[in-house]
Amino acid sequence: MKFVIIGGDAAGMSAASKAKRNSPQMEVMVLEKTLDVSYSACGMPYNIADPSRDMDDLVVRKADIFRQTNKINLLTGHRVDHIDPVRKTVSGVILSGNIDSDNGSPTHGFLGNHDPVVTNTYQKFSYPFDKLLIATGAAPIVQDLPGFDLPGVMALKSLEQGRQIKKFIEANNVRQAVIIGMGYIGLEMCEALRTRSIEVSMVKPGSQFLPWMTCELAEVVKQELDDNSVKLYGGHTVIKIEQAVKSTPSEETQQNRKCALSVVCENITLDADMIIVASGVRPCSEVAISAGIESGIAGSIAVDKMLKTSDDNIYAAGDCADAFHVVTGEKCWIPLALRANRSGWAVADNVCGIETSLSGVAGTAVFKVFDLQVTRTGLSLKEALSAGFDPVEVVIKTRSRAHSHPGSRSVHVAMVGDKKSGRLLGVQMVGKDGVAHRINAAAVALHANMSVTDFAQTDLGYAPPFGPVWDPLLTAANQLLKKM
Amino acid sequence: MKFVIIGGDAAGMSAASKAKRNSPQMEVMVLEKTLDVSYSACGMPYNIADPSRDMDDLVVRKADIFRQTNKINLLTGHRVDHIDPVRKTVSGVILSGNIDSDNGSPTHGFLGNHDPVVTNTYQKFSYPFDKLLIATGAAPIVQDLPGFDLPGVMALKSLEQGRQIKKFIEANNVRQAVIIGMGYIGLEMCEALRTRSIEVSMVKPGSQFLPWMTCELAEVVKQELDDNSVKLYGGHTVIKIEQAVKSTPSEETQQNRKCALSVVCENITLDADMIIVASGVRPCSEVAISAGIESGIAGSIAVDKMLKTSDDNIYAAGDCADAFHVVTGEKCWIPLALRANRSGWAVADNVCGIETSLSGVAGTAVFKVFDLQVTRTGLSLKEALSAGFDPVEVVIKTRSRAHSHPGSRSVHVAMVGDKKSGRLLGVQMVGKDGVAHRINAAAVALHANMSVTDFAQTDLGYAPPFGPVWDPLLTAANQLLKKM
Repeated sequence: MKFVIIGGDAAGMSAASKAKRNSPQMEVMVLEKTLDVSYSACGMPYNIADPSRDMDDLVVRKADIFRQTNKINLLTGHRVDHIDPVRKTVSGVILSGNIDSDNGSPTHGFLGNHDPVVTNTYQKFSYPFDKLLIATGAAPIVQDLPGFDLPGVMALKSLEQGRQIKKFIEANNVRQAVIIGMGYIGLEMCEALRTRSIEVSMVKPGSQFLPWMTCELAEVVKQELDDNSVKLYGGHTVIKIEQAVKSTPSEETQQNRKCALSVVCENITLDADMIIVASGVRPCSEVAISAGIESGIAGSIAVDKMLKTSDDNIYAAGDCADAFHVVTGEKCWIPLALRANRSGWAVADNVCGIETSLSGVAGTAVFKVFDLQVTRTGLSLKEALSAGFDPVEVVIKTRSRAHSHPGSRSVHVAMVGDKKSGRLLGVQMVGKDGVAHRINAAAVALHANMSVTDFAQTDLGYAPPFGPVWDPLLTAANQLLKKM
Repeated sequence: MKFVIIGGDAAGMSAASKAKRNSPQMEVMVLEKTLDVSYSACGMPYNIADPSRDMDDLVVRKADIFRQTNKINLLTGHRVDHIDPVRKTVSGVILSGNIDSDNGSPTHGFLGNHDPVVTNTYQKFSYPFDKLLIATGAAPIVQDLPGFDLPGVMALKSLEQGRQIKKFIEANNVRQAVIIGMGYIGLEMCEALRTRSIEVSMVKPGSQFLPWMTCELAEVVKQELDDNSVKLYGGHTVIKIEQAVKSTPSEETQQNRKCALSVVCENITLDADMIIVASGVRPCSEVAISAGIESGIAGSIAVDKMLKTSDDNIYAAGDCADAFHVVTGEKCWIPLALRANRSGWAVADNVCGIETSLSGVAGTAVFKVFDLQVTRTGLSLKEALSAGFDPVEVVIKTRSRAHSHPGSRSVHVAMVGDKKSGRLLGVQMVGKDGVAHRINAAAVALHANMSVTDFAQTDLGYAPPFGPVWDPLLTAANQLLKKM
């Protein structure tokens, strides 16, 4: 049995390793277009924040270990351009040896599609498969506008892009940055740059900050950015990026220092030494779609609960594939690392004859913005409305620790329930203490289709250093019940 | 309607306040034998740890506020000695004005049953009720052995006992303490005393440290005590406490300093300036049992899911009453603060005609031992065996944060599942980072009767500063599935 995997990141390498554990005799081949596999992509902003850390600390397992210890035929620098579902082959070009990975200045190829840059001629390849996994991930959305290909304009998705950003900061003495976009990655990069004392402005077309978040909670996040001297320019559409004439270090003083770049919007222009494009990601599904495989939500690859695509021999997993949402029961596209790993494993099991189906995702997400822990699971009020529920929301502010216990901080909770069925639909939480892991209790409740009444009765832990007697989630549930 | 409540702590005051919110016209009377109501009892060790804090910081709401704002007829210093279920009356003695609460030296009455000390004659009272709530709580178990009534031998349950311990430490320059018992309260008091640079030895008859905990995890807690120079003497039954002839300060040097007390065991004698008796608690159910009300597990008061006792007009709630366990479906006695508050509310609703029944408890507990967070929910392997399950346990050690993320610490998880039904039965966790709130996800799963397979599929949050991609609970569940 030949099991071929396109993509050597979370889903792909999870599937490859699990397949070899399940069936050591199976021929497992991974085709990865970059030179990096199995690294903690989500760790990049924290690594960029710390000049003393090597970006390669994030590599969980080196390619050679996969080859030698796991006996996986791992081919890096192999870009798959075509899938033939009838002949059951994959084909593409070998980029190894031609990758411009040490060129300090980023290029269009680096930014736009996180491909290595092909500088010379290249070889072609074609391999047959019995079962195929498409694990091509997601790519940053980069506006097709003038100047987005200039040096110093960068996105963060691949480890190589992380290395380039870190190198660029050091080589160019970056002191001012603009981040285009205000999502998870933008906010994490914002914290990373501020940690390095770089001034940060963030700009995006929409006027509402964190539009998926309840206003009161979004305001708390906004305040945290303000407290950390981050300038937010919501409601400004970027028109172009322009290169400025940069002063030479000898001409430069603290006062007259000029930036190399400008982000030009209709009414404002923001100067920067570096620009991070963090306007969201899109599923890398082209190779699947062009092979006639059915597409899913938001241009992702449609899969069933066993992660099978519309083709019986082809699976998809990770950020390129869709999933069922445990609250709505409908398809959704929520690219998150845990799902990628889990669905990689499930594909390996299915390929090896161990039938495994995944129930779905709750869309649980957590991130850090300076001292603030921001987290959500399930549906927001808006999402619940458009999913056809009869939702009601409560927003509360409570404390993270017991009455009079030192170190207690505010905890803000928004909780949404369905009036019709009584079900818990979603929770959002923001605070500086004890928020990150608290959300998981609500996530489990969503998986269990729990009613708000039943959730309000759960026996959550209490000790003064860790919470009030009534956990913030229980206080929210008790308040929500009054409105239902 | 006359609603009378015996006991003005968590369950009693929750019931009183809720009843007045539900039915402002209702006559609500609370009879509390001490002078303190509505305080954070669990916060006492942390308050004792800090000489700069006033013990009265722990009072959440003062008695006068309950009287004036909430219009509750709150009578402190009122000890109920008799319930007449037929005539529907409660009677007892008024201790107000006769309470020896400012006497620095503790006395037998102070230690043994946390009654105020009656120094003079006292008045009797008798009140009728339509509905009665018994919320008499629990009391420390104090061995009936010589010397347990000596000054400097103290237990911690009431706020007054907390005040006395704090005063005693200061007045007597306590430098060495012995704690009899090694449960939650003993361990929290141990940390409090070490924080004040007091040497601590702990002694108990059983040789197994934290016998409810899986050995590997108990060892981690033991190591933390060792790292903080706490001496543990397990397997030593206390025979008596003796008074020593204390040296006067002028005779005393660092070397020859003598303690006032000695804990005498068969093979060892432990000297101490102060002795804390923390050998567990027992339900204060005498007044109920002697009125013919049915008793439950461990001498507690038996209640149904609506918190009603065997008498139609009498409810019981809080540490004096039993509860259903959500995993076994059987009765249990697990005195915890959240249950006390919640069941107080439920009684108020039922008394006011809003039918409320409680599903039960999962026995979720969390406590802090120095830097360590220790937590559990549901059944241990031993408990699962004796409840008739076919349990299997897995114990894992993983990390609290993502690969290479700074500040990551070990997380130890023990997880128990039932082979027969596939159900998740219980979880224990120990670690220095991100343990306390993580347990709640497992607690919710127990309430939902989740299988280990379904729990392993839950979408828990991930971000590098807060956890690995696979949350420690998911890693444990994945490993447990292999054994099931």
